[in-house]
Amino acid sequence: MDTPDYGVVFLSETVGTTLLLLLGAGVVANVILAKTKGFGGGWLLINFGWGLAVFAGVTVSYASGAHLNPAVTFGLLAAGAMPFDIVLILCYLGGQLLGAFLGAVLAWLTYRNHFDEEPDPAAKLGVFSTGPGIRNYGWNLVTEIIGTFVLVFVVIGFGRAGDPQVDAPAGLAALGALPVAFLVVAIGASLGGPTGYAINPARDIMPRIAHAVLPIKGKGSSDWSYSWVPVVGPLIGGLLAGWLSIPLLPILT
Amino acid sequence: MDTPDYGVVFLSETVGTTLLLLLGAGVVANVILAKTKGFGGGWLLINFGWGLAVFAGVTVSYASGAHLNPAVTFGLLAAGAMPFDIVLILCYLGGQLLGAFLGAVLAWLTYRNHFDEEPDPAAKLGVFSTGPGIRNYGWNLVTEIIGTFVLVFVVIGFGRAGDPQVDAPAGLAALGALPVAFLVVAIGASLGGPTGYAINPARDIMPRIAHAVLPIKGKGSSDWSYSWVPVVGPLIGGLLAGWLSIPLLPILT
Amino acid sequence: MDTPDYGVVFLSETVGTTLLLLLGAGVVANVILAKTKGFGGGWLLINFGWGLAVFAGVTVSYASGAHLNPAVTFGLLAAGAMPFDIVLILCYLGGQLLGAFLGAVLAWLTYRNHFDEEPDPAAKLGVFSTGPGIRNYGWNLVTEIIGTFVLVFVVIGFGRAGDPQVDAPAGLAALGALPVAFLVVAIGASLGGPTGYAINPARDIMPRIAHAVLPIKGKGSSDWSYSWVPVVGPLIGGLLAGWLSIPLLPILT
Amino acid sequence: MDTPDYGVVFLSETVGTTLLLLLGAGVVANVILAKTKGFGGGWLLINFGWGLAVFAGVTVSYASGAHLNPAVTFGLLAAGAMPFDIVLILCYLGGQLLGAFLGAVLAWLTYRNHFDEEPDPAAKLGVFSTGPGIRNYGWNLVTEIIGTFVLVFVVIGFGRAGDPQVDAPAGLAALGALPVAFLVVAIGASLGGPTGYAINPARDIMPRIAHAVLPIKGKGSSDWSYSWVPVVGPLIGGLLAGWLSIPLLPILT
Repeated sequence: MDTPDYGVVFLSETVGTTLLLLLGAGVVANVILAKTKGFGGGWLLINFGWGLAVFAGVTVSYASGAHLNPAVTFGLLAAGAMPFDIVLILCYLGGQLLGAFLGAVLAWLTYRNHFDEEPDPAAKLGVFSTGPGIRNYGWNLVTEIIGTFVLVFVVIGFGRAGDPQVDAPAGLAALGALPVAFLVVAIGASLGGPTGYAINPARDIMPRIAHAVLPIKGKGSSDWSYSWVPVVGPLIGGLLAGWLSIPLLPILT
Repeated sequence: MDTPDYGVVFLSETVGTTLLLLLGAGVVANVILAKTKGFGGGWLLINFGWGLAVFAGVTVSYASGAHLNPAVTFGLLAAGAMPFDIVLILCYLGGQLLGAFLGAVLAWLTYRNHFDEEPDPAAKLGVFSTGPGIRNYGWNLVTEIIGTFVLVFVVIGFGRAGDPQVDAPAGLAALGALPVAFLVVAIGASLGGPTGYAINPARDIMPRIAHAVLPIKGKGSSDWSYSWVPVVGPLIGGLLAGWLSIPLLPILT
Repeated sequence: MDTPDYGVVFLSETVGTTLLLLLGAGVVANVILAKTKGFGGGWLLINFGWGLAVFAGVTVSYASGAHLNPAVTFGLLAAGAMPFDIVLILCYLGGQLLGAFLGAVLAWLTYRNHFDEEPDPAAKLGVFSTGPGIRNYGWNLVTEIIGTFVLVFVVIGFGRAGDPQVDAPAGLAALGALPVAFLVVAIGASLGGPTGYAINPARDIMPRIAHAVLPIKGKGSSDWSYSWVPVVGPLIGGLLAGWLSIPLLPILT
Repeated sequence: MDTPDYGVVFLSETVGTTLLLLLGAGVVANVILAKTKGFGGGWLLINFGWGLAVFAGVTVSYASGAHLNPAVTFGLLAAGAMPFDIVLILCYLGGQLLGAFLGAVLAWLTYRNHFDEEPDPAAKLGVFSTGPGIRNYGWNLVTEIIGTFVLVFVVIGFGRAGDPQVDAPAGLAALGALPVAFLVVAIGASLGGPTGYAINPARDIMPRIAHAVLPIKGKGSSDWSYSWVPVVGPLIGGLLAGWLSIPLLPILT
């Protein structure tokens, strides 16, 4: 990928991440808020919802390579797969943060009535941000690091498909957003059990801020004490994946 | 796409939309009517049913570009992606409306015994048309606008894949009906919770008319007071997506 | 497709249909027999099981074009898409019937302990053959006709993808067995509710014969009074689809 | 595939199998351990989790052809599809065994809190290794043989796709890891009911060893009396598939 225009990157990441959060927060709302059609629809529904949210988001942000996640951007930087251009990086991060906020607001508007009729404040927060099944910051961090490592390591591997010097089949690259969508379904199904798989700092912190500032009827705490885990964990996981991809991926793919 | 023959467009949209409604109304019947094999099968089953109904419908209406939805037709008009030819437009809309009616009738015939043995009139209507989890016309309209916007905006983006001047991978276009099927699964999972995702005026109003005119044993109201929401909302969402695609999609894809 | 060698066709259809029934009967056993891991796994699990059974079966019978279903063979004959060669037809049908029997036997061996510990004779038969939710031969027949019509009509349409004179994208043909797998998931989800979607005479009658002749502990009736429905219905549906494809599919795809 | 460098094969199989077990053991942990987000998520969730674990594992081990399973390696040897080079074979097996151990350890770390709070020792073992629904070594062995036969036979068939002398469509090869992922979903859904589908000796024995040696709080027996079944069964199934593929697959595909 040639270095794209800064404004294009910002816009592309903003639109893609908006769609990611609209659909991602949306499926959680559908499963956990009162009186929805998908109430109690189960974890696989959430996994497909988030996976296909990535699919949709990626398909409208090809122009920037569809990072949609600061952990991916930092991972690609660590891997040396994108130029260390501070303005470019800020365009990626800025678009991701803005989009994650906007998408959460849109999801709230989509489910407005159901937020009003849901009695449990924890369910309302759960639409916006992740929280652990068992609160233990150290191990929750380990879980987020491992999940994000898998995401970023495999995504960097996908990026090599189509290169004629690489064993990975060209068709995988031609499938566009589908492989990463399936990967996100996989991570959610397999590694999402303990913490709800933030695996993306923007996806967690910006909706949490939206939860704090929006006039949501009957809302409770935004759980700031946990908020650093799904930011720090994914960043560590993404950086580790980027660094390890340098020696490993040229051998593996 | 060259402007196709009017009769071909009408026939193609009719057949495709018939198949869409047969399978789409069918999966709802399977999940909510008495004594079916899929009774209580859950929201993900409905989402896959509708998504794959789109897949099947699109694969038998490539000749017309497989709109199958007035919101898509109006969105493409707003985007300037099809000629403003009033006869052509009427062929698209006419085929969609006729097909949606025929498909609903076929779904009713397929589940004839189960309609007869289902005691709840609301369940019978639910096979044909959407209804809100929480009735609030304004917010229900917002939900339908947002869902249809996502559908039409991303579908117009898919249409650009394969263009050599576009970043979207050519393979996405070659996949044919699969990407839009996955997109419809996504919208159902994530945005379908409040209103049951009509996101298609023909899909809702024509089955509702079928419900009103068919001799369905023990049927109740066709809920005309709500019927304008899943018509007006999708049209607004489709038009907004078409207009916004003009400045945005050349940048994003 | 050139007319293949008779022995190749027979072998290819036998192996493909064996795999189809092994996996198809297998998923039903997993969901309905006592003490399995997938007990109570739901309709979507059955739909994916059968859809992917088709996927697997097709991938090992490309040599014969992977009919695996007399309704497909008769539909292609009616459509004029295969030569009317009586020996060839018998090789297709013979392989399908033999394979469906063998696959059912293998599924029984796979779930041997669970057949022994399952108390309900109806559940045992349900692994082998379909039965209606509400018994009404006329309407059950209608349901099987409609389901098989959709299968054969769309499959004939898939067969046209890749033809450069056809609008359907070439990529659809290159996907091989995936589109028909998704189609079978769709038909099961949407049209399988009333009768359990035989949509294939061989798939139903040969496992029923296997049920009758195998020494299954505590088995009950093989329900011969219903057995003609899932044979006659699919044949009618397949023939109608083949005939209608002649005028329609050249226009639609 | 040219014979690759020994070290590359070992590393590629190690990394791929680590990812396979991390995600595969992970999804089981998510469904069966206390207080996870996916608790009680059902068999289809487990099937998709394992299928997509294969997808992810394969995408990071293209360099070695992504066996990830001794049954596949022995099957390919039996089929004459890889050279009988004892060092090469040991590199494949060594990587698979090491990776399966490492992946199980990582899954344990990911779900550390949930292992601690889970009261049932059998659930803890269930994350690592398979066990039968009904214990009957002979029939359990039959089930594992049949399941692995299907896996290896069809995988060898996939390997032929893309060869211009073969009827299988080239697109199937270009899809990379997706077809085998769908196949593993199919086998799990359809043949996994009795024994939990090890279908891979490394996948079962090495996590069992990990279960025995790791300091898992409140763990019980590692069930060594059953441990030979998911080793011997898959090896027999893989060898049978390899041998039968020699006469059959050149005819079928």
